[in-house]
Amino acid sequence: MKLLALLLVLPAANIVDDPPMRGYTPASAKIEREWEAKFRAIPEPSRMREAMRRLSARPHHLGSPYGKDNAEWIRAQFASYGFDARIERFDVLFPTPKVRVVELVAPTRFVAKLEEPALKEDPTSNQKSEQLPTYNAYSADGDITAPLVYVNYGVPADYEQLERRGISVKGAIVIARYGGSWRGIKPKVAYEHGAVGALIYSDPKDDGFAEGEAYPAGPYRPKDGVQRGSVLDMPTYPGDPLTPGVGSSPGAKRLDRKDAVTIMKIPVLPISYADAQPLLAALSGPVAPSSWRGGLPITYRIGPGAARVHLKLEFDWKQTPLYNVIATLKGATNPDEWVMRGNHHDGWVNGAEDPISGLIAELEEARALGELVKQGWKPKRTIVYAAWDGEEPSLLGSTEWVEEHMTELRAKGVFYLNSDGNGRGVLNVSGSHSLERFVTEVANDVQDPEARVTVAQRLRAARVVSGAAEARSRSDLRIDAMGSGSDFTPFLQHAGVPTLDASFGGEDGGGIYHSIYDSFYWYTHFSDTSFVYGRALSQVAGTMIMRVASADVLPAEFGNLAETSRRYLTELAALRESTAKEIDELNKQIADGAFAMVNDPRNPLRAPKAQAPAPHINFAPIENASDSLDRAAARFEKAYGALAGSAASSAALAQVNALLRQADQALLIPEGLPKRPWYQHALYAPGFYTGYGVKTMPGVREAIEQKDWVLAEEQVGKLAAALSREGALVSRAAVLLEQATNVRPVP
Amino acid sequence: MKLLALLLVLPAANIVDDPPMRGYTPASAKIEREWEAKFRAIPEPSRMREAMRRLSARPHHLGSPYGKDNAEWIRAQFASYGFDARIERFDVLFPTPKVRVVELVAPTRFVAKLEEPALKEDPTSNQKSEQLPTYNAYSADGDITAPLVYVNYGVPADYEQLERRGISVKGAIVIARYGGSWRGIKPKVAYEHGAVGALIYSDPKDDGFAEGEAYPAGPYRPKDGVQRGSVLDMPTYPGDPLTPGVGSSPGAKRLDRKDAVTIMKIPVLPISYADAQPLLAALSGPVAPSSWRGGLPITYRIGPGAARVHLKLEFDWKQTPLYNVIATLKGATNPDEWVMRGNHHDGWVNGAEDPISGLIAELEEARALGELVKQGWKPKRTIVYAAWDGEEPSLLGSTEWVEEHMTELRAKGVFYLNSDGNGRGVLNVSGSHSLERFVTEVANDVQDPEARVTVAQRLRAARVVSGAAEARSRSDLRIDAMGSGSDFTPFLQHAGVPTLDASFGGEDGGGIYHSIYDSFYWYTHFSDTSFVYGRALSQVAGTMIMRVASADVLPAEFGNLAETSRRYLTELAALRESTAKEIDELNKQIADGAFAMVNDPRNPLRAPKAQAPAPHINFAPIENASDSLDRAAARFEKAYGALAGSAASSAALAQVNALLRQADQALLIPEGLPKRPWYQHALYAPGFYTGYGVKTMPGVREAIEQKDWVLAEEQVGKLAAALSREGALVSRAAVLLEQATNVRPVP
Repeated sequence: MKLLALLLVLPAANIVDDPPMRGYTPASAKIEREWEAKFRAIPEPSRMREAMRRLSARPHHLGSPYGKDNAEWIRAQFASYGFDARIERFDVLFPTPKVRVVELVAPTRFVAKLEEPALKEDPTSNQKSEQLPTYNAYSADGDITAPLVYVNYGVPADYEQLERRGISVKGAIVIARYGGSWRGIKPKVAYEHGAVGALIYSDPKDDGFAEGEAYPAGPYRPKDGVQRGSVLDMPTYPGDPLTPGVGSSPGAKRLDRKDAVTIMKIPVLPISYADAQPLLAALSGPVAPSSWRGGLPITYRIGPGAARVHLKLEFDWKQTPLYNVIATLKGATNPDEWVMRGNHHDGWVNGAEDPISGLIAELEEARALGELVKQGWKPKRTIVYAAWDGEEPSLLGSTEWVEEHMTELRAKGVFYLNSDGNGRGVLNVSGSHSLERFVTEVANDVQDPEARVTVAQRLRAARVVSGAAEARSRSDLRIDAMGSGSDFTPFLQHAGVPTLDASFGGEDGGGIYHSIYDSFYWYTHFSDTSFVYGRALSQVAGTMIMRVASADVLPAEFGNLAETSRRYLTELAALRESTAKEIDELNKQIADGAFAMVNDPRNPLRAPKAQAPAPHINFAPIENASDSLDRAAARFEKAYGALAGSAASSAALAQVNALLRQADQALLIPEGLPKRPWYQHALYAPGFYTGYGVKTMPGVREAIEQKDWVLAEEQVGKLAAALSREGALVSRAAVLLEQATNVRPVP
Repeated sequence: MKLLALLLVLPAANIVDDPPMRGYTPASAKIEREWEAKFRAIPEPSRMREAMRRLSARPHHLGSPYGKDNAEWIRAQFASYGFDARIERFDVLFPTPKVRVVELVAPTRFVAKLEEPALKEDPTSNQKSEQLPTYNAYSADGDITAPLVYVNYGVPADYEQLERRGISVKGAIVIARYGGSWRGIKPKVAYEHGAVGALIYSDPKDDGFAEGEAYPAGPYRPKDGVQRGSVLDMPTYPGDPLTPGVGSSPGAKRLDRKDAVTIMKIPVLPISYADAQPLLAALSGPVAPSSWRGGLPITYRIGPGAARVHLKLEFDWKQTPLYNVIATLKGATNPDEWVMRGNHHDGWVNGAEDPISGLIAELEEARALGELVKQGWKPKRTIVYAAWDGEEPSLLGSTEWVEEHMTELRAKGVFYLNSDGNGRGVLNVSGSHSLERFVTEVANDVQDPEARVTVAQRLRAARVVSGAAEARSRSDLRIDAMGSGSDFTPFLQHAGVPTLDASFGGEDGGGIYHSIYDSFYWYTHFSDTSFVYGRALSQVAGTMIMRVASADVLPAEFGNLAETSRRYLTELAALRESTAKEIDELNKQIADGAFAMVNDPRNPLRAPKAQAPAPHINFAPIENASDSLDRAAARFEKAYGALAGSAASSAALAQVNALLRQADQALLIPEGLPKRPWYQHALYAPGFYTGYGVKTMPGVREAIEQKDWVLAEEQVGKLAAALSREGALVSRAAVLLEQATNVRPVP
C-alpha cells in the first residue's frame, strides 16, 4: 500500500505550479505572466545597436547641440511608441573651462598636455570642436603656484599617514590618484587640510596598462586618457548648486554662487598618467608606503620638495538649459499612481557606455510596452519613462525634476527603477530592501544570455563561487544598499520613493570612463558587442515595470527589510566595539612610549595623537524598533499569505497600497542627516567621505566613524524613530490586509 | 600602625634585586654579571668597519683565491685573540658557469645582457675577473628553445591558476619572479609540472625601484642587478649533493652526479628586470591576475604564445676545496661540552652585508672573549667559534662539518648560536623554544643603539605597534621557529643541538642581495653605517655564549616549549578544519555546476577538480604527549625554583645538564621527515614547498597541506612519540634536579 501511495503522489509532485508572483492573486498572475512573456520576446539587440550608434554619434553633454538633438529624438521615439512624451526644461549652473594650465615649474619644467588625442581606429574621437575639454565640473577658478604633495587616494586615512610623517598639505597642491573614493572627496578633504589646489590622475595600476592592453588595442585606459567628472559636493546635496531643495525652473530663486556650499573651494583638474608621471617623478621626500604605490615605472614619493606646480583654471559659469524627456502611458485603473523608469541621456563626451548602453535598453522596453498596448495590454497604474539630462555634472535633471514635483511625487510615486551603463556579466541590483523578494522573482524569470540558466541562478553561482555560501540557500537574492552616482538618489534618498537600480556587468574591464574613448567603436569591440545583455536589461527592467504597474498589492515584503536592518545594527555595534578597542590600544601604546621606542631616526614617524575613549552607546531604541518591525513584517506576511484564497476587493487593496507606497517615506528623517538635511533616508546615503559608496544607517554609522559620540546617541534616536514609523506602517498595512482578506489575528 | 608598617616596607621594596639569570645561582650570577658587563664594553664599531673593509675587499665565494685568503686571515685573527684556531678542509661539488645564453628568438629577437655593470661610485664593483657570473648554482646543463610562460612566484598555488586557464608549462620555459618562496622551489615545481627550463627575475615591485631609489642613488636593486643563488633542493638535504649524511672529507664515498637527487633537473638562470622586461612584454595569452602583476610598465600576461626563448647553460662541475675556520677556547671545568658560535665567511661576490656584517660581530666577540681570558676569565665549557665556508651554495661548510663530527657533536654539543647578515632595527631571534626565557633575559641586558631602551623593550614595542598586543604582557619574548637559509640548519634539524640565530634588522631596505653591489660602499652608505648594530649583535651574541658557557644548569626552560607546541597543535587542528571545509565547499560548487554558470566565454576558466573529502584526524596522541610535556615542564620549573636556596653539588647538576643538552635530540624523529630523512626535528623544518620558510610540526602539517590523510595520521604518531620523549626527558631532569636540591615532589 505504501508503494502505491508513493506512485499516486509522484505524478502530482511532477506537476510544476507556476511560482508565486509577488503582489498577484493566482488568477491575475496567470494573465500578467502571459503579457510579460510577450513583452520579453520583443526587445531586439540590432535596434539597440542602431540606437547607440545614433545617440553616441556626436558629443552630447549637458548644453551641447547634440544633447538637445538627442533629447528631441528620444522624445520622438517615445511618442512613436505611443507614449505621451514631452521635454521638461530646467536652467542650471554648469561651468565649462576657458583656461586650463598645469605645469611643473621647478625643479625642471614640464607642461602638461591636457589633451586626449584622436585615434584613427575610433571615428568619433576626432570631434574636437564639440568635445568638452578634460576637467572637473564645479572646480573653483584659480591661478596658483605651490609645492606638490602626493596624497595617494586623498581620503582621510591617507592624511593620517601624512601627519605621522610630519607632512602638511597646507598651501600645497595635492596630486591624488583616482580610486578609493568618489572623486569629489579628494579635493574636499584636501581643502579641509589646507591645500590650495588638487590634481587627480588615473594611475595605470588601477586604470590603465596594468589591467590589460590599452585602447585601441584593448579596452583599457591609454596614457593620455582622462577621466572627466564632477567634483560638486554631491554628498551634501546633488542637483543645481544654486537651487537646493527646489526645482531650478526659469523663475526659481537662486543662491549667489559664493553661497553655494557644494561648489568646490579650490581649483581641481583631472589629468592623464602621461601628464602625471613627470610631476610624480619630480617629488622628493619619503618613499610612499607600499599601498600608495601605483603602476608607473618610478619610485613613488610623497614630497614635498623642490617640485612646484603652476595650476591655472578659469571657467565660464553659465546658466545652461537642461532637457529632460518625460514620457507617459496612462494607467487604466490607477492613473494617479506612478511607476517610473529612468536613465540619463547626457554623456561627458560621446558616452556610448555611459549612459547610452542603459538608455538603449530603456528605449527598447518602451517600444515593447507600446507594442503590448497595441495588442490590448492595459497597465493599471501610470507608467512614466524618463530620459534625464545633466546627470554627469551632478544628477541635475533628475534632482531638479524630483524637487519640482516633490509633493505630487510623494503622493503618487509607487516605484522608480533606474539604470545607467550596462555590460556583460551578472545582474547588479541595489535599492529598497522591501523589494528583495520582488527582484528575486523577476531574476528567476529572465534568461542569462551566456549561461543556460536564469539571471538569478547565475548571480547565485557567482556569489557562491566568490565565497558567499549563503547565496546557495537563502530563498531571496540579496540586493545592495544604494549609495549615489546616478539618478536614483533624489527618488530614494530625498523623496522616499521605493527605488531600484539595475544593470549587468563584471565580465569586461575598461578604461574609457568619462573620456572621448567611451564611443560606439569601443563599446562594439570590447563590451556587450552583440547587445544581448542590453536585451537582458530590457527584459529585467521592463518585467519589473509591468509587474509593479498591474500588481493587485504592491510587491513589498518586509521580512527582508527587517533582517537587513538587523544586520546593519549588528555592524554598528561591532563598529563601536572595534573603534573603542582601537582607541584603547592606541592610547596604551602612546602612554607606553611604544612609538618613540620603535622610531627609526632615518625615517622618523610621529606618534599618533591620543583619543578620547569611546563611550558605550545605547542601541536599545534601535533594537526595540527592529523588534517591532520584525513583528509587523511577520504579521503582514501572514495576512498576505491569505490573499490568494480570498476575494479581497480592489477598494480594500487600494487602502493597503496607499500605505505600501509610503514604505520608504516612513523611513525618512524629516530633518535629514547631520550637515546635509537634503539626505533624509534613515537607511541609505552616500558616505560623507566616500561619495558614491553607501553608508547604511548613515546618521549613526558616520557619527561612530568620526568618533562624535554625542551625535551618535542623537542619531540613534532618529533612526529608531524611523524604524518605528516603518513598523507602524507595516502593522497598519497588515491590519488592512487582514480585514481585506478576512484574516483574524491570533489574539 | 598600618601606616607605619607601610613605611617600613617601602624602603625594602625600593631595593631592586638583580633580575634572575637563568641557569645561575644568585652567587654565580653575580660573578657572571660582572664578566658580562666587562665583555659588552669591549666590541668596537671602528674595528668592525675595518674588518668589513678587509673581508669584502675582493670577491670571496667558495673556491676563490680571496675566499681562501679570508679564511687564513680569520684563522690568524682568532689565534691572535688566544683561540686555538685551525682550518678544516672539505672537498665539495661546486659548479660554476661556462656558458650562459638567454635570448628571445620569437616573435622578435632580444639577447639578454646577463651582466651587472661596474659603477664608478662603488670601487669593488669593477673586479670583473674575480666575480662569479650571475647564475643559480646546481642548475642543470641544457640547451633548449621553448615557449615562455609566466608563472608568477612559481609556487604550487600559481599552477592551480594556470590549470584553471587551461595553460600547461609542459615543454615550456617558465619565467618566475623572485619572492613568495625560496628560489629553489620555483624550478623544482616547474619541473614537477613538465617545464624544461626556468628563468627567475627580480621584479621591481618586490625588489627594485618601486621600493625606493635604485643603487647607487639609493639602496635598492638597479635594473641590471641580479640575485645569484643556489637552487640545490635544500629542503631535501643541504650540503654536498654527493655526500648526503656524511662529511665530504677527501676520502669520503661520493654519489654519481646523476644519482644526486638534490641537483636541479632543468636549466635555471636568474636575470635582472632589465633583461626580463622584453621577455615578459613578448608574452601573449590571458592577462595575469592582479596579484601576479609586478612593477614593470607593461601589461603582465601569462602566455604562452609566439614568445620563444633560447636558454643555454653549461657548468664546470668541479670538486672545490672548502675552508672552515674552527677556533676553540677550552673550558676550564667541562671541556667536553661545546658552546658553539658560527657565521659563514663566503659571499656570492664581495658580500659585505651577506655574510660579513654578521662575521665582523662574531670576530669582535672573539676578540673580547680573548681579552676577558687575559683578565682571568675562565669559562666552564669549551667555546667553539666557527667561520663557515660554502654557505651560499648550500650550507656546505656547516653541513659537512656537522656530518663529519656528528657523534661527537651529539655527545658534546650544548648550544649553537648562528648569525649571518646584520643591519639596523630590532632583534630577530629564532630557534629552540626551550631557550625563550634565556633569550629574553639576554635581550633585557643589552641596550638598543638608537632608542634609549633595552633591545627587549624595543622589540616588545615594535610587536605591540604592529598589532601583537600580547608582547606587552607576556613575560618572555617569543622567538621565531627556524626554517632554513643559514648554517643553523644542520645543527638544529639534523644533529638536534639546541640552537639560536640572531640578527638586527627591519629599518633599512635594500636590493643588493647576492649581487656585485653587496659591497663595503653600499653597506657604509645605506645600512648600519656607524656599525652600532654590529656592536649590539656582538653584545647579544657574546652574552649568550658566555652565559651558556658558565651556567650552573643549562638555561633551558620547558614551559614556553610546551606552550608553543600547544599553539602549533591548535594550528594543525584549525588547518584540518579549514581544509575540510574548503574541500566540501569546492565539491558542492562543482556539483552545483556553479563554475560553468559563472564562466565568461571570452575569458574562460575551467572548474577545479573535485577532491576527496578530508577525514578527521586523531590528534589525541599529540594532545596526550603535550599534556605530559606540560606536566613535566611544570615539575622541572618547580625543582629549578629550589636551586637558588640549595647547595646542589656540581656533580649532581652535571647529571641534569647531560639530559638538558639532549633536549632537542629527544625531539628528533630517527627516520626523519617524509621524503627527506635528513631532516629529523619533529617541530621545525624548512617547508618542502616554501624553502627557507619554516613549517612547524612539519610531518603532520605538510601532510595536511598536501591532503595526504594517511600520511598525516602516520606522522601524528611520530610527532607524539617525539613530544613524549621530550616530556620523559624533562621529567627525568626534574627528578634529578629535585634530588640535587632536595625537593620532594608532591605525592
